[in-house]
Parts: sequence; C-alpha cells; structure tokens
Amino acid sequence: MKKPLILVTNDDGITSKGIRLLVEIAKEFGDVVVVAPDSPQSGMGHAITIGNTLRLDPTDIFGDTPAYECSGTPADCVKLAKNFVLHDRSPDLVLSGINHGSNTSISVLYSGTMSAAIEAAIENIPAIGFSVCDYSHTADFSYTAPFIRKIVGEALDKGIRKGVTLNVNFPPAGEEPLKGIKICRQAHAKWQEKFDQRFDPHGRRYFWMSGEFVNMDHADDTDVWAVDNNYVSVVPCQYDMTAHHYTSELTSDWELS
Amino acid sequence: MKKPLILVTNDDGITSKGIRLLVEIAKEFGDVVVVAPDSPQSGMGHAITIGNTLRLDPTDIFGDTPAYECSGTPADCVKLAKNFVLHDRSPDLVLSGINHGSNTSISVLYSGTMSAAIEAAIENIPAIGFSVCDYSHTADFSYTAPFIRKIVGEALDKGIRKGVTLNVNFPPAGEEPLKGIKICRQAHAKWQEKFDQRFDPHGRRYFWMSGEFVNMDHADDTDVWAVDNNYVSVVPCQYDMTAHHYTSELTSDWELS
Repeated sequence: MKKPLILVTNDDGITSKGIRLLVEIAKEFGDVVVVAPDSPQSGMGHAITIGNTLRLDPTDIFGDTPAYECSGTPADCVKLAKNFVLHDRSPDLVLSGINHGSNTSISVLYSGTMSAAIEAAIENIPAIGFSVCDYSHTADFSYTAPFIRKIVGEALDKGIRKGVTLNVNFPPAGEEPLKGIKICRQAHAKWQEKFDQRFDPHGRRYFWMSGEFVNMDHADDTDVWAVDNNYVSVVPCQYDMTAHHYTSELTSDWELS
Repeated sequence: MKKPLILVTNDDGITSKGIRLLVEIAKEFGDVVVVAPDSPQSGMGHAITIGNTLRLDPTDIFGDTPAYECSGTPADCVKLAKNFVLHDRSPDLVLSGINHGSNTSISVLYSGTMSAAIEAAIENIPAIGFSVCDYSHTADFSYTAPFIRKIVGEALDKGIRKGVTLNVNFPPAGEEPLKGIKICRQAHAKWQEKFDQRFDPHGRRYFWMSGEFVNMDHADDTDVWAVDNNYVSVVPCQYDMTAHHYTSELTSDWELS
C-alpha cells in the first residue's frame, strides 16, 4: 500500500520546537513534506498575501524530509504547498502545529495554526491543528505524542467529514497524567484587551495590545472545560459561517423590501 | 432620545472611497466615530497584532467627524476603538466597508471587512459588513446607498441576534436597477490559486499569488446566486465554528480511549 502523503505546517515558524515533534510523529505514518512560515505568524488568523509577493525556499533543517520556508502566512503555506510544491497533488492529511499556546474557544478565529487546517479543509483535505496551552517556546511537548498518534491514526483510518477540520488542544504538562480525549464544542468566551500606551524616543505614541481570556461558558462540554480538567479537547470546526438558525427570523422580522 | 453611537471601519484603508460613503450614511443615523487602518488590509482575515506595536493617530479627513488611523488590522481597529478611543463605551452599531471587492461565500474567511464586523459581534455589538463586487478603487458606489440605509435602519430598530453579524454584498453597478435584498446562506465555493513565479534583480525566486473563484454550489439560496442575479445578499454569520452536526458521529465512530 502506498504511504500517505502528509503536509506539516504551523504558525510559530519553521524553526519552532512544536513543529519538530509533529514532523517526527508524522514520519511514523507516511511521507512528509514541510511547508511552514519563515517567521512567527501567531495571531494571523486566516490572512493571505494578496498585495505583496511571496518567497519560498528549500531548507535542510529536517534532514531528509523535504522542507520549505515561506515568507507568507499559514494559509499561504497550504496554498503554495498544494499548488506549487506538490504540483496540484493533494496531501492525504495536513497537520498544523504543535502550536505554543492555546487555540481553544474564540482563539480559533485568531489562530494561524487553525487557519492552515481550515484552508486544507476548504481544499477537501483532512486536516488537524494541534496546540498546547503553554506559551513557552522551550516547553517539552513529548507528553502529547501518544495522543497525537492516536488522533492521526484515526484520521487516516476513518477520515474526517468533508467541510470539517479538527482543533485539538492539550493542557500544559502537569504532574498528573492526561485523563483522555474529549470531543467538545467551542466555548463561548472572548479576550478582554488592554492597551498599554507608551512613547517612542521621538515622543510619538504607540501601543502594546495584551489581553485576558474571559470565559462566559461554564458547561462541561466545551474545549475550555476539557483542557481545564486535564483532558485533550477535540473540536470539529467548519468553515460555513452562516448562522442558519437565524435566517428565517431575519427573513420574517426585518422589513427589507 | 440619545443618538446612537456608530463606529465605522474598513479594510481598504481610511482614505478609500468606500468608507467615505459609509460615513456619510452613518451620520444620518447617529454620532459617528471612525477608526480605520492607515493602509490597505485586504485579505487580512481575522489577524490581530500581538508580536508588534500599534499606532493610532487622529486625522481630520472626515471634517468634524472624529477619526483615527491605525497601523493595525481591521480587528485591531475595533479592539482599539472600544477599549481606548471610546473608553470602554460600546458603540450601538459597527459598520465595516464599503469594501472594494466581493466578500461572498468563502471570502468571508479571508475578509478584513468581515473580521471587523465579527470582532464587534464577539463584543456583543450589532455589526454589518458591506462589500461591492467591484474591485475598482474609483467605482461609484452611490447606487448602494438606499439599500444600506434600509439595512442600517432595520439593524438599529430590530437589533441583530447575539453572536451574529451580517455580511452584505452588492452586485457591481449595472444598467438594470437592483432587484431587492435577499437573506442568503454562504455559498460552497473556493478560490483556485495560481502562483506566478518570477525572479528578482538578484536572481532570487518570488511568487505572486492570484486566484480564480470556483463556485461548486448552484442553489438559489446562496449569496453568490443573489449577487449574480442582481440582488443584494445578506448572510447572517456566526463566530461559533463548531461543526455541531459532526460531534456525535465523531464521538461514536472514532476510537479515542
């Protein structure tokens, strides 16, 4: 049987620690190609590069595994991988991450990691984004490996429904072993931003944005609950953003003629 | 009665023609504040600025209407407007656009215009993104004004359901008058990218990305159908990306224990 072709990408950049572990795991399952950003792209959401040029250069940092660093966003990486690097051959699976930081709840919208997975889903390629709720760049993610193997194995075996991708989040490493994997929904939460106003050496004002995560959703079927309770969360995500539940109300209540 | 406070933003940049018309219309309904990008931010999706600083400077280009140009993304503009410019007072309505270019179907994911509206919805502020399927920077959008007035009026009168924002798209100006407004769903379509490989004066390779819109969805209840048939499309959009229809299948079919 032909080995599956697995594309690996991320948003922290091609030299990050998280992508290295993901490449090692992916190599156990198939032929791996890496196309990842040449610089950190956290918080890039589903941005694509349309008013500017893109660079794509081969790199040997993964040894024998073909790898390319790209000046664009994670979504650009998937587009370049499929249409240029792989000459329109679709990979059998796209893996994105392992992200250094949480992508639970509303963070799925801001996440470069998940935008790569969503971009693959739009192309009808099964895809999974992996994130660890630990922002440290030196964190040891090896405890996540058995769970990633399990999820990747099931994805290759059972497939993922068309139009859907998976958002997988791990609690940070702790003393207790992880309790298992939970299928969840996206928690209803938001980031409450703060703007730290400063002045540059020329006296001109600038800001640093920082934020605090505010969870308004305390049910036990959410990704935030799972991760807070030492489970691995798996949220199936779709890119149809239509609020279907609101269409008929809007049609009947609003006077638009 | 107190006049509503309306925040206007966009992704084409604060000097674009589309935002000027939107500000004029908004002023008919309430007190207007403009916070918009200082440069074009098309295709920025839901990107936010987290690894870099932000600038925010007042500008008098809208005369007496308070306006600020921001170095960040459309989502940054909404965050800065609410948390800094308006001192945590929530606007009664956020209007984004008028975008020079289509944001129907899958383009909602890549759209800076819609990310501003979605960001407002996350903050529980009614919001609407307006786009015209005409990429020209000099196009005359005045024919859209009566429809924008109608939609803004209904939004202020009836409100928009929590967690939902509206994605409004106009056909390009034509000889026939627009047929009316249709509530729609996001069409199932994608962009098929092409990469134009070139070499810089130093012999190093670079790419321009371009794309062709491919509609796989020929039903008559989609935004693409509406715009193609000379209607104004209105799609209610939600930011809960959970594929709820797939959760139970995933739970029962996948072996994750």
